[in-house]
Formats: sequence, structure tokens, C-alpha cells
Amino acid sequence: MFDLKGQTAGYDTENEALVIIDQTLLPAREVILSLTKKEEIFAAIKELKLRGAPCIGVSMAIALSVLSARDHENDKQSFYENFINNCSYLVSSRPTAVNLFWAADVMKKTFSENLSKSIPEIKAALKKRALEILDDDILRCRKIGEYGAELLKGKTSFLTHCNAGRLACIKYGTALAPIYVLKENGADVKVYADETRPLLQGARLTAYELAKAGIDTTVICDNMASYVLSHGLCEAVITGADRIAENGDTANKIGTSGLAVIAKHYNIPFYVAAPFSTVDFGTKTGNGIEIEMRDGDEISEMWYSERMTPKEAKALNPAFDVTDSSLITAFITERGVIAPEKLRDMKDR
Amino acid sequence: MFDLKGQTAGYDTENEALVIIDQTLLPAREVILSLTKKEEIFAAIKELKLRGAPCIGVSMAIALSVLSARDHENDKQSFYENFINNCSYLVSSRPTAVNLFWAADVMKKTFSENLSKSIPEIKAALKKRALEILDDDILRCRKIGEYGAELLKGKTSFLTHCNAGRLACIKYGTALAPIYVLKENGADVKVYADETRPLLQGARLTAYELAKAGIDTTVICDNMASYVLSHGLCEAVITGADRIAENGDTANKIGTSGLAVIAKHYNIPFYVAAPFSTVDFGTKTGNGIEIEMRDGDEISEMWYSERMTPKEAKALNPAFDVTDSSLITAFITERGVIAPEKLRDMKDR
Repeated sequence: MFDLKGQTAGYDTENEALVIIDQTLLPAREVILSLTKKEEIFAAIKELKLRGAPCIGVSMAIALSVLSARDHENDKQSFYENFINNCSYLVSSRPTAVNLFWAADVMKKTFSENLSKSIPEIKAALKKRALEILDDDILRCRKIGEYGAELLKGKTSFLTHCNAGRLACIKYGTALAPIYVLKENGADVKVYADETRPLLQGARLTAYELAKAGIDTTVICDNMASYVLSHGLCEAVITGADRIAENGDTANKIGTSGLAVIAKHYNIPFYVAAPFSTVDFGTKTGNGIEIEMRDGDEISEMWYSERMTPKEAKALNPAFDVTDSSLITAFITERGVIAPEKLRDMKDR
Repeated sequence: MFDLKGQTAGYDTENEALVIIDQTLLPAREVILSLTKKEEIFAAIKELKLRGAPCIGVSMAIALSVLSARDHENDKQSFYENFINNCSYLVSSRPTAVNLFWAADVMKKTFSENLSKSIPEIKAALKKRALEILDDDILRCRKIGEYGAELLKGKTSFLTHCNAGRLACIKYGTALAPIYVLKENGADVKVYADETRPLLQGARLTAYELAKAGIDTTVICDNMASYVLSHGLCEAVITGADRIAENGDTANKIGTSGLAVIAKHYNIPFYVAAPFSTVDFGTKTGNGIEIEMRDGDEISEMWYSERMTPKEAKALNPAFDVTDSSLITAFITERGVIAPEKLRDMKDR
């Protein structure tokens, strides 16, 4: 069996398979899936067996290489058409996940650049590119972890929200990367994880991966952050980001903005850790970020053995909120630690 | 069948029964229980079929009257001993609920004051006292509602946390009393109810009673309060209180302090509605209030079909937190609306 070595997804090049940990079964069961057919890869993305923008992008690249490697077509035109069909098919599994499109575009470009070569050579080029994308993600997160660990040196207690760990990426993660690096460096770190209602990514995923890494982990309900921060139990808050506007306003999992307000009130630094590509210079401020509204049943019914709210009551379920840049102490990126007001200066570097 | 007329608990004097709505089955099933035996009353309190400090106190008084009325003992000494045994037995159902002790003390005093009278006369005195306690609670909450409605006139959208409604009292409640009175006065009110993890009193109880009263009710996860308040969806936050220190620091359900911090940040007024007896002049500040820690399994396992956190992760479960008086706009009590710094002046009035 292919060894994922602590990664969330990997490329089993010997058996030409995309190997993932099934995140829908965590934390109760750790099931490793070796995916080789396009239908099962499509289902894995659609059913959130793999999730997190970076993880989805990397997995898409690996999937496209795996499917090409397993294609026995000898006619180059047909081989190309199969490749393009695989791109379109897999991208349709989760049409709002931009990283699927990004990975498909990169792989298409690689195909085009090698169009004059033989099919085996094209397959080799696609595989090389997929492995580069995989390694790039790991390196980028490692960089975030190192810059973060340098910044946070001496601190040992942290609060995080949702899951911006290795389960959202490949290894290290973003918000959790500094914590993993601090732990590697011998620090005795302790993490409080918001359970993150309604989908419980903190309770299910963050707590799983931190505990698995031997880190002292305590789950709290989202409404306990004020208690934890006011009692001096945490020295810093670190979250990930879904999208960062040019002025530093940051869209992230619902609850992040309230947490930032509370951290500010108690004078606890609030850091956002994310790849620099999360900064969207086309969006000037947080006002330009549209918030996805999800089904209220995720609040009322999901996970439970019976419905928890009366039928007559509605439920509002915004998936994200926007944290004002004034509440963010700094961004931790693979390019270094950046103050909100300095983001713009980094644009063209 | 005895008509509770929108009350949470009532005294069926015709059949000598304590009548309650079974709160453990809400919101899925509305089951009215008519309790006449001490064992079933004990179980109802212990199993939280009735809950909320005022409701527990009133129910205790009714229960003691019901049990005395149903006692066929003709010897006054034995009748007294039975009464005292009932007090001790019922108080042991939830030994930390101070209102049980308070109600037992009031009823014991009534018995003592009528000791020279006949058994039927003593029974009548106990019944009269129980009905007074019931009416007092309704009147007190009604007063809170009227003062609150006057204060909040013109406002129509509110956010509340946990359940400080009629289900915690008898009628009107505390935090929800101003909302019910505004509604009675013809206002088109809308309420957002925090679901209130981990025990979901907001989702289960507050949403139930508000929707039942025909009030436009929307349940949100606790971590969505910042979204709701920053988007102008609510004009005021109102919560109840478990204990108020002399300086205005207020212990209430976990999450209240974070909500108050967020409300302050967005300049939304934050009100605490409670009977004046909630002010504990023996406690100078919030630092003197000890916070009950509950079992972490309430976060990890309760309600769910399977455990939601990994076994290796801990869970911290403080049941309450303390909101700093500087975050509280005013207290709404049956004595009127009181600024935090004026509480002390009201002590001896």
C-alpha cells in the first residue's frame, strides 16, 4: 500500500493512482482510498472526501496525470480529446472550486507545450507537472510554517477556527503550519480548536490532525472563544483565509470576524495564514466579496438524530464572513509576514 | 385537561396537580404532564423536564402544596413531618438549584405561620402561597417586559442568546418579555436566536416559544452573530442573567460575553433583562463568580449519532462566562431600566 507519509493526498506513481484520506469519515475512521477511475475521482471531489482549495487543486492535477497514464489510446488526437474530456468532466464535480479550473489550466498548458512530442513523452511531462504542483504546495505551506514559527517564537498556546491545516492542503496546511513547525522545533504547543458550526470542521478535522501529530488539542464551542481569550489561555489566534481583498479585508469561514473582534478586545494578536495567491487584487475591499448562503438544514438537522429547531423557525446560514483588515495583526504568507496595509506593495514583487 | 394558557407550569387546583410542558421533548413534541406524585415531580426536575431558575422555584412551591393537599394524614405532627420530608426530598433532585431551596423556605415559613390552624386551613394557606408565588413570577416578568418595551419602542429586530423566555419562567420570561410586549403592542418584531451550543437552548427552546407566539424567528449558529450585527440585521441584543455582581459584571450562559464584545464593536446596544433579585450584592465584581465546568462529552457526543471529535482531543466546557459591566448598555428589571453603575444605588430601595 502506498504510504501517504502524513500527506492528505499523494501520487502513487508506481500504480498510477491518486491516493487520498477520506475526510468524510474522520475522525471516526481513517480510510485511505486509491483512486484510478474518473468516476470515483469525480465522486470523491463532489462528496467532499477531499476538500480544501489547495488540496482540490493538487488532487485535480494528479488525477489528470493518472487518467492520461492509464489511457491506452495510441492516436494522439484521440488521446488529447480524452484528456480534455477528463478536464471538463472533473471540473464539473464542484463548479465553484476555482482551484479545479486552475489545475486543469496548468495541466492543459503543459499538454500544449509538449504537443509535438510522443504520447509517452506527453504522459511523462504531465506526471512531472503534477508532481511539481504537489511539491510546490508542500513547500509553500512549509514556508508559511517557517515564517509563522519565527514570528510566534516563544508563544505556545493558540486558538484556531475551522480547518486550515494539512487536511485542507497536502502537508502542514496554512493556519496550522506555524504550529507544526513550532512543534518540530521542540516547542510544547497547545491548541484550542473552535468546533466551527455548522459543519464542525474544527471538531472533526482540525482536532483530528493536531491530535494525530501529538499536539495537545482542546475542542471548544465557537461561543467559548471569549472565555478562552479572556482567561489568558491563548497567546495568539491563527486562521486561514478564503479570499483577501487588496486592503486586507479577509473572507474566511463564518465566525472568523467575531473571533477577530473578540481577540482585539482582549489584546490578543490575530493572524491570517494563507498563500499569497489568496490575495485578490481585483477586489479592493471586503464589501466586494459576495457571501455564499447555504441551506438552513445544515444548522437544524445535519449530524443530529432528530431536527433541533421548530419547523416554523427559519435558519440563516452564511458560509463565510469578512474580517475587517483593522482587526488583523498580520498575514503570514510564503513571502513572509505582511502587515495589512503593506499587501498592496507586494503586488508586483 | 387543565389549560396552561401559554404558561410553562401551572397549578391545576381542581385536580391538585403540578402541570408542566415537558421541555426535554421540545421542539419535536409538545407533551403536557400532570404531576401528582412526589417521585414523578422529583424525576421531572432532575431530568430537566422543567428548567430555568424561576420556573423551578414556582414549580417547587406548587409541588409542595399539591403533595400536602393530597396528604390524607389527620395527625398534625405527622402531616408536618410529611411536608418537611417532601421539602428535603424534592430539594435533593437538583441540589445546586437555589430556587428550590428558596421556594421550600417560603413554603416552610407559610406552614409555620399557620401552625396553630387546622390541617385543612394549613392546606389552604399553602395553596394560597403557591398561587401567589406563581402570580408574582408572571407579574415580575410582565413588568420587565413593559419596561423593556418602553425602552426599545421603535426597534423591531433583536438578537438573543440561550433561553431566557417563558420556558425558563412561567410566562413572558426575562430577555424575551420585552419582545412579547412589543408584539402585543402591535410591533412587527423579528428575532435572531443563537442556537447556543452545546445544549442548544436557543435552537430548541427559544425558537420554539417565539415561533409558537407567531414571532418571526431565525436561528443562527453562535458564530454568526458578528455577521448578523455587522449587516444591520439587529437593532439590539437582549440576554438574561444567571448572576449579576454589584458592579454590573454579569454571569450568563457561555457565549454571552463574546456576544457583548461584538455588539459593542458594532455599536449595537446590549441589554440584560433579569429580576432584580439576580443582583448579588455579596459579590462585588465578576471575578468573584465561579464558573461551572461541565462534561466535555456534551460538546463531543451529545445529540449526535456518533462522536464528532477524536478521542485524543480534550474538550473544555465552561457553562457560563462573565460579561464585563462596561459592555452592558443597561439592565432591564421589574424595578425599571438601570445603568450598570446605578445598580448599587438601588440596593436598599
